Amino acid sequence: MIQRTTSRSGGRAARRAARAAPLATHLRPIRPGLSGGTYAPLTATDMDNIHGAALQALEEIGLADAPASGVAYLTGAGATQGADGRIRFPRALVEDTIARANRSITLCGRDPEHDLDLSGTRVHYGTAGAAVHLVEVDGRSYRECGVQDLHDAARIADTLQNIHFVQRPMVCRDITDNLEMDVNSIYACCAGTTKHIGTSFSDPAFVKHGVELLHMIAGGEDAWRARPFVSNTNCFVVPPMKFATESCEVMEACIKAGMPVLLLSAGMAGATAPSTVAGAIVQAVAECLAGLVYVNAVRPGHPAVFGTWPFGLDLRTGAMTGGSGEQALLTAGCAQMHKYYDLPGGAAAGIADSKLPDMQAGWEQMCSNVMAGLAGLNMVYEAAGMHASLLGFCHESLILGDDLIGQALRCVRGIEVNDETLAVDQIREVCLGGPGHYLGTEQTLGRMQQDHVYPTFGDRTSPKEWDELGKPDLVEKATARKHEILAQRAAARFDETLDAAIRARFAIHLPA
Amino acid sequence: MIQRTTSRSGGRAARRAARAAPLATHLRPIRPGLSGGTYAPLTATDMDNIHGAALQALEEIGLADAPASGVAYLTGAGATQGADGRIRFPRALVEDTIARANRSITLCGRDPEHDLDLSGTRVHYGTAGAAVHLVEVDGRSYRECGVQDLHDAARIADTLQNIHFVQRPMVCRDITDNLEMDVNSIYACCAGTTKHIGTSFSDPAFVKHGVELLHMIAGGEDAWRARPFVSNTNCFVVPPMKFATESCEVMEACIKAGMPVLLLSAGMAGATAPSTVAGAIVQAVAECLAGLVYVNAVRPGHPAVFGTWPFGLDLRTGAMTGGSGEQALLTAGCAQMHKYYDLPGGAAAGIADSKLPDMQAGWEQMCSNVMAGLAGLNMVYEAAGMHASLLGFCHESLILGDDLIGQALRCVRGIEVNDETLAVDQIREVCLGGPGHYLGTEQTLGRMQQDHVYPTFGDRTSPKEWDELGKPDLVEKATARKHEILAQRAAARFDETLDAAIRARFAIHLPA
Repeated sequence: MIQRTTSRSGGRAARRAARAAPLATHLRPIRPGLSGGTYAPLTATDMDNIHGAALQALEEIGLADAPASGVAYLTGAGATQGADGRIRFPRALVEDTIARANRSITLCGRDPEHDLDLSGTRVHYGTAGAAVHLVEVDGRSYRECGVQDLHDAARIADTLQNIHFVQRPMVCRDITDNLEMDVNSIYACCAGTTKHIGTSFSDPAFVKHGVELLHMIAGGEDAWRARPFVSNTNCFVVPPMKFATESCEVMEACIKAGMPVLLLSAGMAGATAPSTVAGAIVQAVAECLAGLVYVNAVRPGHPAVFGTWPFGLDLRTGAMTGGSGEQALLTAGCAQMHKYYDLPGGAAAGIADSKLPDMQAGWEQMCSNVMAGLAGLNMVYEAAGMHASLLGFCHESLILGDDLIGQALRCVRGIEVNDETLAVDQIREVCLGGPGHYLGTEQTLGRMQQDHVYPTFGDRTSPKEWDELGKPDLVEKATARKHEILAQRAAARFDETLDAAIRARFAIHLPA
Repeated sequence: MIQRTTSRSGGRAARRAARAAPLATHLRPIRPGLSGGTYAPLTATDMDNIHGAALQALEEIGLADAPASGVAYLTGAGATQGADGRIRFPRALVEDTIARANRSITLCGRDPEHDLDLSGTRVHYGTAGAAVHLVEVDGRSYRECGVQDLHDAARIADTLQNIHFVQRPMVCRDITDNLEMDVNSIYACCAGTTKHIGTSFSDPAFVKHGVELLHMIAGGEDAWRARPFVSNTNCFVVPPMKFATESCEVMEACIKAGMPVLLLSAGMAGATAPSTVAGAIVQAVAECLAGLVYVNAVRPGHPAVFGTWPFGLDLRTGAMTGGSGEQALLTAGCAQMHKYYDLPGGAAAGIADSKLPDMQAGWEQMCSNVMAGLAGLNMVYEAAGMHASLLGFCHESLILGDDLIGQALRCVRGIEVNDETLAVDQIREVCLGGPGHYLGTEQTLGRMQQDHVYPTFGDRTSPKEWDELGKPDLVEKATARKHEILAQRAAARFDETLDAAIRARFAIHLPA
């Protein structure tokens, strides 16, 4: 109904105010787990052909370098080891594994509010990576990153609605002992956020230490196993088509400890994978299918994310590039293959080649992030903060990425078409004897929060308003917000007793 | 074949060099008119429902304010005028018009190399708009724009491979006489580029003067009519559902002069169109269908671009916003409706709300540009250079937009799947006794130009290289390029005799 009388303006103002209040999560225009799938770069035939090529590669080429334990698991499951040492996978074994694999995975947050349901084309964005630099926007400089930077990233991500999980995006370069680095990476993330966390053990022997820490945080082994809130990123292959021996052993240990695994195949198209988008996807799919057989041979139904992560390469220089259109296609094509198998999947998007959060970074991060979401990728890894083709992580960029991903999520949500949204009755009311505009209609006001995403840092002022505000700089606003967040007490931090117990058991590098 | 012997490295180096040379247009990884259509935000049922709602709106609500000539054309074609003065369109009239409309349109460049084939889902990107400010990146300032700025924009766009047409993006605010402004806008664009140009007459009486200028440039009326290289943007409606009386008269004059028209319906979702994405599309489709009936009543088969351009609104402030996810959905949904009708269509994308070419501008411009292209929009208007929600145009941003759009075009081109790209044979060769990597394979080298888009200004250096280069700033590089382009003699400028004749006939404001 159109409001025309001033006598009702009081009620209207009240309704306006009510509408301006924050919405319940289920009413928000965007939220974790919106369903994508409207973008399909591959046809059904293309997917059949990619699947067929992957099966052929597994059957005829196979994978080298499985550890002894892996050889036992895989041959026990029905794979064969050739005279050349390579493990080859009969078609039926792969297809049976796909059929029996766990396809209803929930990645838990320490706070159940942050649980991630990876079914269908549900889309979640988060951080990931192994950057070795922190990007300091003030001095436009790169410096080695440390545990405090990682903890700060987790704390910042904890406050950002559109960052749905925190896989550790940086390596603690200031911790020289590898066991301490692994343990402290988990501590730094868990003390910073109650969202789902991803980590990566560097040695099979370290898993038990990390898991001991996780038991302490969870309140015991049973509590941990009931709701494992940390998954392990397993770079279980060294593309092309070789198992990463030690990482496979890490994976076995994680599976036994009840930790969900990300089967990560990170080929570089043109170097360690074919240079064509289709060929890189074929190899990644083949490798991840091998990984899926492996996981299910160790423990049938263990939660595994199908992590085809092919990366782009600049063939002029041989350097990695993650900000390209080719990268966006690689990731979106992989997302479609995950759904071809109806398996929970993840890949990399949102990578900037740019060194700073500038216009290039904006277009690079949006391109792959929005295409990944539209393609229905369950886990969009490396979605925020990543610069210099994964070498640098930037806190300001992470904060701005929340806006950028919010916009991508609005696109994932898509266009709602029904009698109300088609609005013929509203058009009639407005045009025939009505006010001739839609500004005050109940439908406009009623949907202004529910349908529209408003950026936090994105500036929509007019040039005049912007001038009057002193021409605020986007990155400076993000820096100010960073300081605000880090000045607050971290919501996720452990209580004092637990923290003291952890510190008594482990060499924790962050100050208490 | 994999290169393994050093004895052949001479030949290999020669082939590498050959491959590094510029490719013929048809071999380039991206080019004007690549086919989109892999992204479909609307289902078939959604489109049927939008079409049905638009027909209902035309039949029951109709459009007010047609000029007398328009009433005659439209009622002559079978529309009816009600007692309320509104023109209503029987369903059969609209459907017959759609069936008979011109769907094989080529928008000509003055140089035929720049012709645009608007069939199917072929995608072209270009400038457009009516910005009133030029954005000066040096001082981060906005100033009124003038004819020199417009000419410079055309000259810059002429050099950019991924800007396929030049609809005038700025208003000549320094020309107070409206006739002179219209004539000089055409002159400034035509003297700057041989790509297809869009202009917009402000008064029906001015059309004959503009056309006289175009005849002179073309070399006579016949030459002009054979290859009209300028189209007219007709804001023929004042949404919701009212004809723009004077603009309709301009349109009639343009049609008679043989000038292709853009039927532009620019409703603002939430103000002059329903706030829902679907409703705004319904109204825009209804209005453009009315325009299509109008054009075909004046001259059956006259080339018209179906210009559903709904814009977004920030409902908190009532200000226009073009950089949002909602905007990207509006435009992509419209692109799908164009293809539902199999009509050449255009809409707006690439608008930044940001005032400067910063990270926000990058993500805003990429979001709608890539989604428009993936949806198969024939004419992506306002794709580069637009800031402050269309109020400002920026030359540096136009230059950077060429990179951004190049990347979007790479995504439009999509994933090629065939035996060669699936690369199973290559994987086998590399893995089984081969080098274990793809860096030197014939397939990698052979496709490095054909498959990959390399940015001109986008930086892919490592942090170390970037530091050694003095940490180049993206926008400063664009400014340097702008000065380079503008220091050259414009390739499109008229020969001296023609220019003198034009200047003798018209008050040309640009210096000779």
